[in-house]
This record gives sequence, C-alpha cells and structure tokens, in this order.
Amino acid sequence: MIAQPSKNLETFPNPRPGRDFTIRMEIPEFTCLCPKTGQPDFATIHLAYVPDALCVELKALKLYIWSFRDEGAFHEDITNRILDDIVAAIQPKFLQVTGEFNVRGGIWTNVIAEYRQPDWQAPSLVDLP
Amino acid sequence: MIAQPSKNLETFPNPRPGRDFTIRMEIPEFTCLCPKTGQPDFATIHLAYVPDALCVELKALKLYIWSFRDEGAFHEDITNRILDDIVAAIQPKFLQVTGEFNVRGGIWTNVIAEYRQPDWQAPSLVDLP
Amino acid sequence: MIAQPSKNLETFPNPRPGRDFTIRMEIPEFTCLCPKTGQPDFATIHLAYVPDALCVELKALKLYIWSFRDEGAFHEDITNRILDDIVAAIQPKFLQVTGEFNVRGGIWTNVIAEYRQPDWQAPSLVDLP
Amino acid sequence: MIAQPSKNLETFPNPRPGRDFTIRMEIPEFTCLCPKTGQPDFATIHLAYVPDALCVELKALKLYIWSFRDEGAFHEDITNRILDDIVAAIQPKFLQVTGEFNVRGGIWTNVIAEYRQPDWQAPSLVDLP
Amino acid sequence: MIAQPSKNLETFPNPRPGRDFTIRMEIPEFTCLCPKTGQPDFATIHLAYVPDALCVELKALKLYIWSFRDEGAFHEDITNRILDDIVAAIQPKFLQVTGEFNVRGGIWTNVIAEYRQPDWQAPSLVDLP
Amino acid sequence: MIAQPSKNLETFPNPRPGRDFTIRMEIPEFTCLCPKTGQPDFATIHLAYVPDALCVELKALKLYIWSFRDEGAFHEDITNRILDDIVAAIQPKFLQVTGEFNVRGGIWTNVIAEYRQPDWQAPSLVDLP
Amino acid sequence: MIAQPSKNLETFPNPRPGRDFTIRMEIPEFTCLCPKTGQPDFATIHLAYVPDALCVELKALKLYIWSFRDEGAFHEDITNRILDDIVAAIQPKFLQVTGEFNVRGGIWTNVIAEYRQPDWQAPSLVDLP
Amino acid sequence: MIAQPSKNLETFPNPRPGRDFTIRMEIPEFTCLCPKTGQPDFATIHLAYVPDALCVELKALKLYIWSFRDEGAFHEDITNRILDDIVAAIQPKFLQVTGEFNVRGGIWTNVIAEYRQPDWQAPSLVDLP
Amino acid sequence: MIAQPSKNLETFPNPRPGRDFTIRMEIPEFTCLCPKTGQPDFATIHLAYVPDALCVELKALKLYIWSFRDEGAFHEDITNRILDDIVAAIQPKFLQVTGEFNVRGGIWTNVIAEYRQPDWQAPSLVDLP
Amino acid sequence: MIAQPSKNLETFPNPRPGRDFTIRMEIPEFTCLCPKTGQPDFATIHLAYVPDALCVELKALKLYIWSFRDEGAFHEDITNRILDDIVAAIQPKFLQVTGEFNVRGGIWTNVIAEYRQPDWQAPSLVDLP
Ligand SMILES: [Ca+2]
Ligand SMILES: [Ca+2]
Ligand SMILES: [Ca+2]
Ligand SMILES: [Ca+2]
Ligand SMILES: [Ca+2]
Ligand SMILES: [Ca+2]
Ligand SMILES: [Ca+2]
Ligand SMILES: [Ca+2]
Ligand SMILES: [Ca+2]
Ligand SMILES: [Ca+2]
Ligand SMILES: [Ca+2]
Ligand SMILES: [Ca+2]
Ligand SMILES: [Ca+2]
Ligand SMILES: [Ca+2]
Ligand SMILES: [Ca+2]
Ligand SMILES: [Ca+2]
Repeated sequence: MIAQPSKNLETFPNPRPGRDFTIRMEIPEFTCLCPKTGQPDFATIHLAYVPDALCVELKALKLYIWSFRDEGAFHEDITNRILDDIVAAIQPKFLQVTGEFNVRGGIWTNVIAEYRQPDWQAPSLVDLP
Repeated sequence: MIAQPSKNLETFPNPRPGRDFTIRMEIPEFTCLCPKTGQPDFATIHLAYVPDALCVELKALKLYIWSFRDEGAFHEDITNRILDDIVAAIQPKFLQVTGEFNVRGGIWTNVIAEYRQPDWQAPSLVDLP
Repeated sequence: MIAQPSKNLETFPNPRPGRDFTIRMEIPEFTCLCPKTGQPDFATIHLAYVPDALCVELKALKLYIWSFRDEGAFHEDITNRILDDIVAAIQPKFLQVTGEFNVRGGIWTNVIAEYRQPDWQAPSLVDLP
Repeated sequence: MIAQPSKNLETFPNPRPGRDFTIRMEIPEFTCLCPKTGQPDFATIHLAYVPDALCVELKALKLYIWSFRDEGAFHEDITNRILDDIVAAIQPKFLQVTGEFNVRGGIWTNVIAEYRQPDWQAPSLVDLP
Repeated sequence: MIAQPSKNLETFPNPRPGRDFTIRMEIPEFTCLCPKTGQPDFATIHLAYVPDALCVELKALKLYIWSFRDEGAFHEDITNRILDDIVAAIQPKFLQVTGEFNVRGGIWTNVIAEYRQPDWQAPSLVDLP
Repeated sequence: MIAQPSKNLETFPNPRPGRDFTIRMEIPEFTCLCPKTGQPDFATIHLAYVPDALCVELKALKLYIWSFRDEGAFHEDITNRILDDIVAAIQPKFLQVTGEFNVRGGIWTNVIAEYRQPDWQAPSLVDLP
Repeated sequence: MIAQPSKNLETFPNPRPGRDFTIRMEIPEFTCLCPKTGQPDFATIHLAYVPDALCVELKALKLYIWSFRDEGAFHEDITNRILDDIVAAIQPKFLQVTGEFNVRGGIWTNVIAEYRQPDWQAPSLVDLP
Repeated sequence: MIAQPSKNLETFPNPRPGRDFTIRMEIPEFTCLCPKTGQPDFATIHLAYVPDALCVELKALKLYIWSFRDEGAFHEDITNRILDDIVAAIQPKFLQVTGEFNVRGGIWTNVIAEYRQPDWQAPSLVDLP
Repeated sequence: MIAQPSKNLETFPNPRPGRDFTIRMEIPEFTCLCPKTGQPDFATIHLAYVPDALCVELKALKLYIWSFRDEGAFHEDITNRILDDIVAAIQPKFLQVTGEFNVRGGIWTNVIAEYRQPDWQAPSLVDLP
Repeated sequence: MIAQPSKNLETFPNPRPGRDFTIRMEIPEFTCLCPKTGQPDFATIHLAYVPDALCVELKALKLYIWSFRDEGAFHEDITNRILDDIVAAIQPKFLQVTGEFNVRGGIWTNVIAEYRQPDWQAPSLVDLP
C-alpha cells in the first residue's frame, strides 16, 4: 500500500474543548525545492497551538508536510503558507509556526509566524518558581 | 511480593500548608498502547504543582503511571486524563501536566494541560538578576 | 582537627547593606536518610537569596548541610526546613531553596520553596536585549 | 488493523552477501517486568552485527521487542536471550547486544553479550587519521 | 563567475505585508580587521527583525557581510553600523543586531543594538505553557 | 539557472598523489523514498576516504546525493550502492560510507560499508598521547 | 615590553551616544587570594552594561582584572567592588556584574550586583516570537 | 521494614556461564568520610566485570555501597578495597573499579584498579567500523 | 604598531630535545578565498606534532595563518600546503594537520594530512585503564 | 593560619604496592606569568600516573601548583618541568602530564609529556565490549 503526499489536513474533535491546552509538534523531516536554483532545501518545522473545536491528525500532517517535497518556495513564504493552511483546517485559538532552515551561503535562517483568534485571550501564564 | 498497577492515587498531608511552594516531578517511564495500531507508545510525563492540603505519594504515583501500560489512548487525551485524575485526588492550587511523546512518523509531540483553583492567585514571581 | 556537623548557621555582616544584590549557591553534596526505608537519599540543594544585614558563612553552611546526613526526612519537608533554618539565621530580604532529588522508583522530584520579607519589594528586573 | 507482539523474527536476504558490512540499531523503547517485584523495567537495546546470508527485518524486530512487554526477566538474562534469538534467526557473522537499563536503587546497569561464527575473522579495522 | 563584496543590500517584497512575523539569521562567518593592530577579528552576527514592506535578500546579505573583510572597525562601532545599514535598506518595524566577537586578551565581548519604528507596537507575546 | 540531480560523479586530480591523506565528508541532507510505503526517508551520509589519482568534486557530489530524492531503496542497499558508485568514479585506496537513518518504528538504524584496494596497506596509525 | 596590572580603567567615547545598546563581556581568567587562608581563588566575571558617554577599554579592563591577582577579598565584596570601580570610571546607564566562583568546600557560589542611573528607564524589551 | 548497610555481597549464579559477557554498573550515590578532616566525601563508583560462576546481586550491592557511609578512608584505598571485596565475593574473570571523586582543593581525582584471573584471556575485541 | 601577515614561520629551540612529547594547537580563525567563486571560505585548523630540534613560535604561526586571507585555494590543497610549510620550517618528528571546513552546499568537509621522519618510531602508546 | 605556595611535593606510601593501578587528577586552577609579556597565563593541568612506592599528597600538590603563580615560563617548558618535578618526588612507574592552556592570539595549545620507568611494562589493556 503506497501512501501519497496530500494537502488535505484531516482533523479530529478536540477531546477537551472547554480547556485551553497546548499542543507542540517538531517535524525535523521537511524538504522542499529552492525556487531560484531548483535544489533541495531542508528544514525543521515547529508547531505550537491551542485547539478550539479541532486538532490536526498526526498521519495527515505527515502527508501534508510531504506535499512540499516537489514544490519551490522561499523560506518566508513557506512558513506563512503552513500557518495559513493549518489555520484554515482547524481554526485554532492560537497557532505559531517556526521554520528552522538549514544553512545556505553560511547563513542560518528561522522564520516565525503566528495566528490568533481576534477575540481570544492568551492565558495568564503561571510561572512557578 | 508482587506489586500491582493501580488507579488509586494515595496522598499525604502537605507538610507546609500555609506556604505556596512548588513540587516538580519527571517520569520518563510512561508507556501505553496506541488505540489505532495497538502498538506501544512511550512518553515522559512532567508534573508541576502547588499543593493545597494534600501531596501525591511517590510510590502510589508510580503504580498509577503503571496502570496505563495496557490502555489504549491518544496523546491529547492521556495528558488531560492524568491532569483530571491528579486534580481529583489532591485538589491542588495549581497543576500542570506535560506529556512528551516519542517520535511517530517523523513527528515529535508534546501536550501540556493545566488546572488552577478558581480563586487561587499565582505567586508574583521574584525574578532575581 | 576533626570537623563536626552542626545546625549552627554562622553569619557575617553584609558587605553592601544598602544595595539589593543576589547570592546563589549550588550544593551537590547533600545526603539524608529516607524515613520510610532508612536508606540514603541524595540531592543537590540550590539557594538564591538577597541578604539584608547578614550573609550565610560558607564553611558553616557546609557543616549545616552535613548535619542532615543521619536524619530521616521527606523531600517536601527537608526543602521547607532548610528554608526555615536559613531564614531564622539571616532574615534575608528574599530566599529561594530548591531541593533537586535523585531518581527514586523512576521518578525525579524537585521541591522549591521561598520566603520574602513582608515589606520587601522585588527589584524591577532590567532585562537587557 | 491491530498489530500483535511476536517472537517471530522475520528476515530478508543480505543485499551484499560478498561484503562484510556493519548494521547498527538503537531501540530506546524496550520494556519488560521485573521478576522480583512485578513492576515495569525500561531499557535501550543496542544491536551491532555483520550479516551473513540474512538481515533482521525492521518491522518484525519491533514486534519482537514488544513481545517482552509482559515477560519477567533479569537484566543479565534478557540481554543474553535477545542475543540467542537473533543468532537463531539470522546466523550472523558477528552480533553484539547491549542492554542499557534505567536506574534502579541508585545503580545504572549495562549488560553486553556477543556472538561470532567460529570461523569468522573480524575485519582488520582501517583507522584513518 | 567571480562574486564581489558589496555594500549594496538588495531587498525583496515582504510576502505577508499584513502580518507581523519574525525573521532570524545567524551568520558565523564574519571577519574584519582590528583598527589598532591591523590583525583579523572574527565574529558571529545575529539578526532578528520584523519586516515592513521589504526583506533582506540572502545572497546580497552574504556579500554585504563579506564587504567588512578588509575594513578596520571596533566591536561597538561595527554592530551599530550593521544596524544602521540594514535599517536604511529595508526600514523594518524592528531590528536587533548582535555581534558575538571571538576572545581577545582573555575577554569575550558581545554587542547588541536595536532599532524600532517610532510608532510600532511590539506584539503582545503569547507565552504558552 | 535550474540545477538537476545527476548520477554523474565528477572528479578532479588528487593534489598530493604521493601522500596517503584522509578526506571526510558529512552530508546531513540525504532523502529517498521507502520502497514499502512510498514515504520519504531521511539520513545523514558520512564519507571517509583516502584518494588515489582522483577526488570527488563537491558540487557534483551534492547533485549525486540529490539524485536519490525520488528513488525507493532500503537502508542496507542504499549505503552499499553509494559505496559502489563512488568506488567506480574515483577508485580510492580506501572508502567508508555510513548511512545514519532517522528513526522508524522506534528504531534508529546505521549501516556502514567499506571498500579498500586489494594491495593497499592501511597506514600505521600514529596515536600520540 | 612588560605590561603591568593597573586599577586605572581607561575609557573611550561611546560611538553611538544617542542609542541605548548593550555590551556584554565574559572574563574567565579572574584570580585573587582568599583573605582567610591566603590561597588562590578563581572566578569568571561577567559584565553587562548600557554605556552613557563612555565605554570601558578592553586592554585596560584586562590589566584591571589582573590587579586583583595579589589581593585578598571575599566573594561578595569583590563583586560589589568591581561594580563600584567600573561605575566610577564610566558612569553607565546600567551595569550588572556577576562573579561566578569556583567550588570551595563542595559549594558553588555566584554573586550578582547591579547599578542603574537614578533617572534611567530600562528599555521596554521587544520579545519577538 | 528498615534496610541496613551491610558488607555482605550477595550473589546469584551467572545465567550464561559458558559465555564471556560484560556487566557495567554506575553508582553515583557513594559517600564516605575523609580520614583526615572527618568531613563527607562523595564519589561515583563504576564497575565493569566479566562474571565467572557468580554475579553481584543489585540490592546487596546497594547495601554494600551504603556501608561506607560512616567509614573514613582515602581515595586510593577505597577503590582498591571495593575491588578486593567484590573479587572475594564473586571471583570474576575480570573486574575494573573506578572511583570518580568530587573536587577537593580545586583538584578532581579518579582512581582505577583492576583484577583478572591469572589464566583468563581477555576476549579479542571485535571493533566494527 | 600594525602587524603584517607573513609566510615566515619563526621557530624556537625545543626546550626538551631528548624527549618525544606532543604539542597540539587548534586555530579556529582560518579564512581564505574559494578559487572557483572568489568568496571567503572558513575553517578550523588543528595541528598535532612531535618536535625535533625546533618548535613553531605562536605569534609567527598566527601571522602565517593570516597570510592565507587573500589567497584562493581548494580544501585538499590548503591542508597539504600547511603541512609542507611547517615541515619545511621545523622538520618535526611527526606532524598531523587537519582542516575542518565550514559547510558548503550542505556538505561538511575535513581533510587530514600527516608527515613523519622516515626513521622516526612512533611511541608505543601507554593506554592506562 | 595562612598557607604558603611550595615546591615541596609531599608523598605518602602507595596503599597497594603490588598492583599496577591508575590515578588521574585534573587541576583547572593553574596560573603562571608569560615570560614575554609578563601577563598572566591560565591552564588546566591533567595528571595520569601508575604509582610505584609513593603517591603524591593532594594538599601538597595544590601548594605546588600554586608555586607557579609568580613564575614566568613557556607552555612547552612548564609541562615538562611539572613532569620532571613529580617524577623526582615519587619515581612513578608511569606519568603523563597534559597542560591545556587558554587561548592566546586565537590559538589554543596543549602540551603532553610522559615518563616511564625503563623496565616498566605497560599493562596489557583489557578493552571489554
Ligand atoms: Ca533545531
Ligand atoms: Ca525530555
Ligand atoms: Ca527570568
Ligand atoms: Ca542538576
Ligand atoms: Ca543511551
Ligand atoms: Ca583509534
Ligand atoms: Ca555563539
Ligand atoms: Ca516563560
Ligand atoms: Ca548524527
Ligand atoms: Ca560559567
Ligand atoms: Ca526574554
Ligand atoms: Ca553512562
Ligand atoms: Ca562523572
Ligand atoms: Ca570543530
Ligand atoms: Ca582505549
Ligand atoms: Ca578542558
């Protein structure tokens, strides 16, 4: 059974819809193509979100990340597109996407973009000693 | 003498009930079953809490963690259930549970959930230089 | 000349009484006995304080830490007792004690307790870029 | 489709039977039961082998490791049994098994056992500068 | 085709002009000359910025960094000059430049300088648990 | 100008043909497809070789590594194929290839394969104190 | 030409007097004598400051640090004296001095002291995602 | 049930008497008294042995290590005594004991002692690439 | 007084000519130009040598390393040239030069070259437990 | 009671004269003066030795290390002198001294020198799997 890359981000219902909790994911296996040179780029993608009614399904997320494999896109653009796609799929209360790209030309680049629901209040953080 | 897994979270009286202090625990030996594939999942569970009248007893906590060994549950659900169970047992002023799960499909997942008593004031943190 | 463990925390005058400054100490050589099993427990003790009129003398602190060697006490209790003893000896503006205990039953435990003078204002922290 | 633990170590033909090469595997998700207390033990298992006609199949190895989940066995015994089982399955030229067990009673234990074919010559190692 | 060092910082349009997002770059290959001794100095330069209409082009940034190779300048001056040059090129909402210089005379030096648009509001940071 | 993946390993003459010296390369950006599931695999490839008349050209090596991007192959096979291809291109005195693959099913795999010229003597290693 | 230790902290004009920026220095080569035992003490000294009209000159700072080599002083006193001396030399907007002393009697000690101009406003920190 | 320190090193039969295999143990919780000053010393003890007919029992080893808690002994002596005691208890084919002592007077000390049966041949080590 | 880059490797007499001892040096501040693109390359150079009658003078070595700043040369060539130059200057009993180059095109490269006097015997290494 | 630096290396009888065992010491608090510039140099000194009839006494070693504080000496010379002095004091079977000096001019230097008794046989090292 051969799997296929897919832009379809499947979801499942948030198991604790009444509680603001955090889900973090680290995906070290992201690769796409450089739109200038056509050569492969590599990155680690980090997600941090507070779900509303829906969560991202793990296996679908993997196929979604795979779908960038043959696409050409710039670092700044990719990070914002991943943000937009996941927001469209699950309408989270908050989502932060970080693209941590491998060195090119002696320069390491990270791009970080965020979405939050207009009326959502970030939790007052309890910072224990 | 053979020990048994148990959902019973034994407690003991907080030795300093008049002072808000912090207890942190890290439990790298959590395992349960994946409800989709039936295969073992592994995680490190982190607790951070401010006790009220009761503290969690260490040995009982170990048997409680053991009780998940043959249960099937999703990452998001497990973390919230551990939170609910410990809240039910000790009614802490504050409790944060973090489930740090081993990689699956090239993706690392953390889930963090918190409880605080409605009338509890988080301490004003002294952040020394 | 044989030294002796001692509960007597000697002090010396704060060399800059008009300035709120921070003293941090890390003591990796703490050991006591478990009151349940009688077996040795090991911990690293961390102190962070803002002195008022007095500072803790280093050599006396070492003998004080040594004095727990043959005592039985629980993690939560020890950390609070060390806090109480040092507060009694030097009446600091602020003191935080962290007990970082070695693993037992696959569980790592930290206990953190604090004292501050009722009228003391924590310094407004300068967080430089 | 629910997977099952299994003692059956599937194999596949060595893709380069005429060349002595090395395969290393690290399996951080091993768990069994302590035969004395009945409580879970955790370990990382390391394999290093030189295949002869057969290699160990990855997915079957995972189910094999899983098969220890409800068995009681001592550290020294487990490591030697894994060695014996893999030797029986693939008759390698050389196999080393390391069991790196989690701390118990303040003591960390590793057990290392090896098999080599009676007539097999270990390669003369090229140690480049 | 031989590249040339250049003070010309090429730019490209911000792909998400309506969203405040962060771009971080780490450039470990900075070298210039010490104006006192004439000898080479080495540093890692870190950038963190929120773009407005423009972003810094990666390849041009590399040639810009190269342009310092034969210039003499003090640590404090270089860091502020890089800040000024990038601000002139892209008028960012916010820019922080850190110069992390190699040890000289047994002393390690870092210099950090920032620019922000007078009317720009730093985002209210969402600090998830 | 769009680059293309290529199996053609360009070479250049060894600049010191009369001296046995070592060249090591680490390539963290290897990706291919799993022949069973069709999904991407990721690895770091390590080379260590003693050149004879020829060296591997860096840019061609990058395009060669890229050429595996859409191929399906098992870990043990890939590592041996890379060895064979580089041996065919440069006939080195000695070559070691290590494939360090990302975790799959909770198991980390490394495969190491070597070639040496039949009449080549490994240098007597000077191991200084 | 033999250099000499010196209490004279030479300065140079701040190259960007209109901008609040940060200078950090780490000096791992501090040594003095213990006033009780006469034996050498060792420390790493950390400085972080916001200059006003003047900066500390690097070479003079090195000679100043050297000047403690034959002096006897307690940890708490030294850290405050270095703070006072540098404040007297450059009247910075803000200065933090950290003395990170080597272990004595199994105890590691850090002392941190700060000065800020009475009318100086710490910058509102931009904490980017 | 209160445990007691004990010099009695219990043993159990080697589960694979016909195979030379290695058992390593790391015991970070060793403490004794300095015979000169009477003050506590701390160390990590490392064991590596090849069993003959007997293995050291883990729980008894823990009580044995505990038995040094109130004894005074020098670093060089302790390490050799632990070696002698374990040799007497299990007559191993080979045993190495390392005492890794905490810093005293700014000096870190390790002592390593070994025993091997007169007629025992160390295994010819297979050092795979 | 402005220093100058120089190919002149000054030397000083070996202070212990009758004893084979080792000198290791690590020079993280090497830079030259790529002969293909003209752009800067960066590397760490490691030396390990056994002196005969002469040692390399530290300050001259620094100026020698600096002399590559405006030269174009390939990785394999540079490492061998540094070896040749130092051999010509001090005729050591043994010298190893390692060039550890920064990543280019996603590939990290190390080149290691050695010289030894024809009649020199490497010391029989004492490998203590 | 004020201690004094001293060239007198006190000794004590080897507690196990019939067994070749290893003593390692790491002394991070070495400082002397540079004979060229008069400025302080810093180093970590490592010792590894096999005692014959005598061992080096820890406290005397500390005073001996202290005795270099006001002496000027080159790196290569110091390391050999420490070797000679300790050999004179305890006539060990084997002694290795490593001087690991702090960076000067961007170059890190280590010097390693050894002594062994003419008729001493290094132990045949047991290198367990
Ligand atoms: Ca990362
Ligand atoms: Ca972790
Ligand atoms: Ca803070
Ligand atoms: Ca710690
Ligand atoms: Ca491990
Ligand atoms: Ca080696
Ligand atoms: Ca850095
Ligand atoms: Ca925080
Ligand atoms: Ca790696
Ligand atoms: Ca430090
Ligand atoms: Ca911050
Ligand atoms: Ca270990
Ligand atoms: Ca250690
Ligand atoms: Ca390096
Ligand atoms: Ca060895
Ligand atoms: Ca070191």
